[in-house]
Amino acid sequence: MTNDTSDMKIARPLPSYLIQRYQGWKATSYAENKVWYRRLAEEGQRPRAMVISCCDSRVHVTSIFGADQGEFFIHRNIANLVPPYEPDGDHHGTSAAVEYAVRVLKVTNLVVMGHSNCGGVQGCHDMCAGNAPELEEKTSFIGRWMDILRPGYEAVKGIADPAEQMRALENQAIMTSLKNLMTFPFVRDAIEADQLSLHGVWHDIGGGGLFYYAPDKDEFVPV
Amino acid sequence: MTNDTSDMKIARPLPSYLIQRYQGWKATSYAENKVWYRRLAEEGQRPRAMVISCCDSRVHVTSIFGADQGEFFIHRNIANLVPPYEPDGDHHGTSAAVEYAVRVLKVTNLVVMGHSNCGGVQGCHDMCAGNAPELEEKTSFIGRWMDILRPGYEAVKGIADPAEQMRALENQAIMTSLKNLMTFPFVRDAIEADQLSLHGVWHDIGGGGLFYYAPDKDEFVPV
Amino acid sequence: MTNDTSDMKIARPLPSYLIQRYQGWKATSYAENKVWYRRLAEEGQRPRAMVISCCDSRVHVTSIFGADQGEFFIHRNIANLVPPYEPDGDHHGTSAAVEYAVRVLKVTNLVVMGHSNCGGVQGCHDMCAGNAPELEEKTSFIGRWMDILRPGYEAVKGIADPAEQMRALENQAIMTSLKNLMTFPFVRDAIEADQLSLHGVWHDIGGGGLFYYAPDKDEFVPV
Amino acid sequence: MTNDTSDMKIARPLPSYLIQRYQGWKATSYAENKVWYRRLAEEGQRPRAMVISCCDSRVHVTSIFGADQGEFFIHRNIANLVPPYEPDGDHHGTSAAVEYAVRVLKVTNLVVMGHSNCGGVQGCHDMCAGNAPELEEKTSFIGRWMDILRPGYEAVKGIADPAEQMRALENQAIMTSLKNLMTFPFVRDAIEADQLSLHGVWHDIGGGGLFYYAPDKDEFVPV
Repeated sequence: MTNDTSDMKIARPLPSYLIQRYQGWKATSYAENKVWYRRLAEEGQRPRAMVISCCDSRVHVTSIFGADQGEFFIHRNIANLVPPYEPDGDHHGTSAAVEYAVRVLKVTNLVVMGHSNCGGVQGCHDMCAGNAPELEEKTSFIGRWMDILRPGYEAVKGIADPAEQMRALENQAIMTSLKNLMTFPFVRDAIEADQLSLHGVWHDIGGGGLFYYAPDKDEFVPV
Repeated sequence: MTNDTSDMKIARPLPSYLIQRYQGWKATSYAENKVWYRRLAEEGQRPRAMVISCCDSRVHVTSIFGADQGEFFIHRNIANLVPPYEPDGDHHGTSAAVEYAVRVLKVTNLVVMGHSNCGGVQGCHDMCAGNAPELEEKTSFIGRWMDILRPGYEAVKGIADPAEQMRALENQAIMTSLKNLMTFPFVRDAIEADQLSLHGVWHDIGGGGLFYYAPDKDEFVPV
Repeated sequence: MTNDTSDMKIARPLPSYLIQRYQGWKATSYAENKVWYRRLAEEGQRPRAMVISCCDSRVHVTSIFGADQGEFFIHRNIANLVPPYEPDGDHHGTSAAVEYAVRVLKVTNLVVMGHSNCGGVQGCHDMCAGNAPELEEKTSFIGRWMDILRPGYEAVKGIADPAEQMRALENQAIMTSLKNLMTFPFVRDAIEADQLSLHGVWHDIGGGGLFYYAPDKDEFVPV
Repeated sequence: MTNDTSDMKIARPLPSYLIQRYQGWKATSYAENKVWYRRLAEEGQRPRAMVISCCDSRVHVTSIFGADQGEFFIHRNIANLVPPYEPDGDHHGTSAAVEYAVRVLKVTNLVVMGHSNCGGVQGCHDMCAGNAPELEEKTSFIGRWMDILRPGYEAVKGIADPAEQMRALENQAIMTSLKNLMTFPFVRDAIEADQLSLHGVWHDIGGGGLFYYAPDKDEFVPV
């Protein structure tokens, strides 16, 4: 097998461990729900909420909220970040997802969900603390993406306890996204028209806890 | 209730329907697996594959591939698109996710999963066919994101049957992402070092089918 | 899979999305209240009120009145209708439920709750206005059930504004049920013995409002 | 206050304990979800399942299945019975509800849910065993409604243990409804067209258990 990297020839068939799992799903969950899936296909989706969460393999919104097919519009990126509003004509995947959810699907809740032990947030911390020069390079997509969280680092850098500081920075990732969401005119409009509400939650992977941002206390409290 | 949109005060507590579902998960799935979740939290994730799929509420990779916590690093954006390599110092969420998966997590499989009835692909079609001028505007994040698929539209615009054309364009979204992935030096390097393979699949929501891109046939075939 | 429709073989196991939700309830609400549920099972129910409401998925008496287990005896049918007293020996599900609530359980309040956007009332309107001939057929259970509301249509057909007319007809559904309840000797007896009172309310799904029939004004007023 | 039972004057304002609860709901759940409720009102319901359960105050489908507004079309009558198909032009509330769910809403699952300690089933037992002559009278709506379950009594009358016999009769109520559902041409058509599936479950109020009818074993097994 040669690796011809010049074009599509590089693509490989689906690995058998994925095929096997898919076939299990097809014969059970799909078989059980096919009528509903057909209706969802024909009539379109009508999700009640958008959730922005992390790509991290340990955090599944679909598990935690028992999400059935058709219920949540889910965007997942590194560290559940939303960049500020920048209509510069470039490709903005997160902003496009938010626009689609708010303007086209008209979701009623937009939840930003962060989590403990976040590698992206850790990288941001290391970079801002001067311990990851490779992330400072222009060519580092991770570094440039985590730039969004730099103001958050400034807010927590004085915290002495490392674990406490990391959790505070994970919380900042959620708060930064909420603040940035408010810079999108269509998000602000939907909120002012009472058609949308924003929510921030932080999930503790190991302990299973869920905490939401309580604006009156300006902190994350257990649900 | 006034909507003070000036800052974080706008955030609302988590809606009770989500809290109720979370509490059900905590008392069942979490309770059953807490030892494993604690290990995942302490030892970090070690996902075998990255999956790039759509935000669409009807398509859950975690269902279709029976994904347990810790198995797949999942990025979801509109129409499962990967933009070309552009190390310009701007925020590139998708590129950052790919970089993290390939360079940090060293996943062995990278699967791009598209699907039927895709609203993002439909929007691209309408825009390219001249039927959605609002998507042509510079301020349309959806339009600018779907620009990535313009070459794909050129490839399918001659197909007469509308349903066939849409499916072909959904396939193009997957192929475009695979081609663009090959423009990332670290992706190409990992493939050439035999450490990574790319896969493209298309999922039929209503029928439950799964088709993968077969490079020898240059078409999508059922698994 | 063949569909053997000849007998019970047609029944299917409970779909997993319902099992999952049930298991969440079992591990949380049930676990928390099991002592009370065991007492309810052993000692029997002693509901304070009967509520007759619509099958509509958007109207949950248990939510609106915060009903805990054991509090309300609830009958739900299309358009919250009560037919007139007809002791003809046939199966009368609604009349049986009323009889059980009043004579066996001796509830003290009987509430008929209608609602906005009622599909059953809309069907009655279309049928009476001559726009739904299929509902006029003898084999249409929906049509024959909505016949109960025909006198109500006569009372509102002169209202010019369509939205106002629909709301008036939804109110008529409630008033018709209250009038028909008074044709049941055991209902009349219980009221005359000061052991039961009847109430009519109309709920606005979108606006969340609740209006009750005020006999002195002969109209529905906000609570 | 006189009890004028001749007309609508008999209706009373809503009792304050209900008003108080409603106001609590309005200020909390409704306030939190008003955007979604408005959308449900405007766009209509799209429930995935119909549930036929008992009026019993101790059995809330909305709790057990965590039903949010808009999810389940719920018919509740005494002993969760469905009469056989009888298109005789009379008022058939249960048949109308089934017709609406299957033909208009096109639900994909129809669940008949029975329960332990069912007063209606107990009444049927007493009547059939000759211990409740008042239920044999033509004017007894409860008796005539429970006639639907007479064949079920015949099937279990040989069981010696009273508790076992009652549970068997409660199971018969579910099975009888499933069988009767199959006598409705539109139910049979929807099943044969693979658009609907039937399910029977029995709920143990005190123990919190849920059992479904497994056609291959012809018995109820725990979920």
